[in-house]
Amino acid sequence: MTEAVSLPTDRARGLFVPVLTPFEADRTVSMPRFLDQCRWLLASGADGLAVFGTTSEANSLGIDEKIDLLQSLIDAGIPAARLMPGTGTCALPDTVRLTRAAVQAGCAGVLMLPPFYYKGVSDDGLFGSYDAVIQQVGDARLRIYLYHFPQLSEVPLSPALVGRLIAAHPDTVVGLKDSSGVFENTRDLLERFPGFAVFPGSEARVLEALRLGAAGCISATANVNPAGIAAVIAGWQGPEAVALQESASAVRAVFSEVPLIPALKAVMAEWLADDGWRAPRPPLLPMERTAGAALADRLAGLGVSSRRSTEA
Amino acid sequence: MTEAVSLPTDRARGLFVPVLTPFEADRTVSMPRFLDQCRWLLASGADGLAVFGTTSEANSLGIDEKIDLLQSLIDAGIPAARLMPGTGTCALPDTVRLTRAAVQAGCAGVLMLPPFYYKGVSDDGLFGSYDAVIQQVGDARLRIYLYHFPQLSEVPLSPALVGRLIAAHPDTVVGLKDSSGVFENTRDLLERFPGFAVFPGSEARVLEALRLGAAGCISATANVNPAGIAAVIAGWQGPEAVALQESASAVRAVFSEVPLIPALKAVMAEWLADDGWRAPRPPLLPMERTAGAALADRLAGLGVSSRRSTEA
Repeated sequence: MTEAVSLPTDRARGLFVPVLTPFEADRTVSMPRFLDQCRWLLASGADGLAVFGTTSEANSLGIDEKIDLLQSLIDAGIPAARLMPGTGTCALPDTVRLTRAAVQAGCAGVLMLPPFYYKGVSDDGLFGSYDAVIQQVGDARLRIYLYHFPQLSEVPLSPALVGRLIAAHPDTVVGLKDSSGVFENTRDLLERFPGFAVFPGSEARVLEALRLGAAGCISATANVNPAGIAAVIAGWQGPEAVALQESASAVRAVFSEVPLIPALKAVMAEWLADDGWRAPRPPLLPMERTAGAALADRLAGLGVSSRRSTEA
Repeated sequence: MTEAVSLPTDRARGLFVPVLTPFEADRTVSMPRFLDQCRWLLASGADGLAVFGTTSEANSLGIDEKIDLLQSLIDAGIPAARLMPGTGTCALPDTVRLTRAAVQAGCAGVLMLPPFYYKGVSDDGLFGSYDAVIQQVGDARLRIYLYHFPQLSEVPLSPALVGRLIAAHPDTVVGLKDSSGVFENTRDLLERFPGFAVFPGSEARVLEALRLGAAGCISATANVNPAGIAAVIAGWQGPEAVALQESASAVRAVFSEVPLIPALKAVMAEWLADDGWRAPRPPLLPMERTAGAALADRLAGLGVSSRRSTEA
């Protein structure tokens, strides 16, 4: 990984993947498939794993389930220093429990949604939420990456709120994933907060973001194109940067018109000839096999032909 | 309680209160205040307690916290048969755990939000969610009241979905709380599904709803006006029905322009001269004391002058 930008050394940087969570037929998490995917992603250019993200169906996982899964990953040899689990839930006690477990396990950081049931809450209220988590976890090792995803959470994190959190907890609130899809918001955060680790939530314009000082990228489609996105981040200052971006964007575009999580799972099912990969948890529905096969065909046309071949 | 409508005998009916959840200074639940409020509500005309509702800040409570609280209430003598706890969370395992705890404790039923993180989900997906909970709880005693609150959940429950759930689980999916605020939706449900226990989420038009066959009411403001709302339900066929509705609506209107949960807590703080009642959990913020006192004054002007006086 190149140094994408000058950041304090304790900041995460590079490509973090919100790892898909595969399930068994009884809807429990499929640990063998999950571990296999984590290992393949790390072997394919990912700098870290943002497990328990939106793409991971994290909010469809129970609190105990997430704590157990995190420990199981580490017990199986996934380095905690490469993990940035999502730990933000609606409820302060659950967020504190999961965040504490991540810190105590040695995770690089946590990606934290605001509480997202109540809508129209104030910046003061959201500041109070994050502040309470930090105080209750009470561990200097905690590194929080704020998670701004207004389309799903319906609870935006304003730049003013981000600034207040950085000012109050400069060694703890160290970065943000911007899934707004609004490039101006990413730019604004990068300009306002030098040294703050901003990760665009998509690779679609990651080259532009890197040039403005972004720390890397955290993107759903990195589950199927880790090498392609990692190449943009590694090569952003090189002569192939634009071509690498165009290549990554073309892969991303394959998923622009489909339900993203079912589509990514359907591609995994095709690539691994493992129908067990297909199903999300309710309330999401699986994509039909023919649609998944069509996506895999389009990816093959872009040179992303199977998990094994992209591993090279 | 009068028989508001002809319903199967296992259906809840009457006034169920989404009990406010008071906190201690350290943000843990204040069990003495909570229990005191539950007892007062039952003594003041409430037929049951819909603990862990939106007004209860249920989604700001942890899963273990809710299971412990429910058991504590029952251990303290609140009859399980008068409890309808909210048990719907984003995550299937957590919803199953809490629902199972409620059923095993003998609760009258549960009020169940759909999973609410993912937006734009299909009726098939939501059907799958409720169906999975019912199957995993696997207890014939389970009675589910669906919770339709699109403004906060952002995941509406369509009449078509409700019909499918009733058809698939006629002895389990027995009612619905309609917090949409759209009276036509309440009317539509009552017309489509005779014998289904529909509770408007506000007393504002409860008399009209009762005349159309509603089972009762589940309303936030019942925390401060239980007797007034219970009187409308008890007297809906009597000569004072319209006057009782007007009186309840006037109390409701006091809260039309303020943040509802902080306002209700501020009134409790005034009435009981207990500042500890004031604070919600983050991300909600307390209402200032002067604003709370002003609300209490307006309520006094309507004859709702303190918790003690309304108890008579």
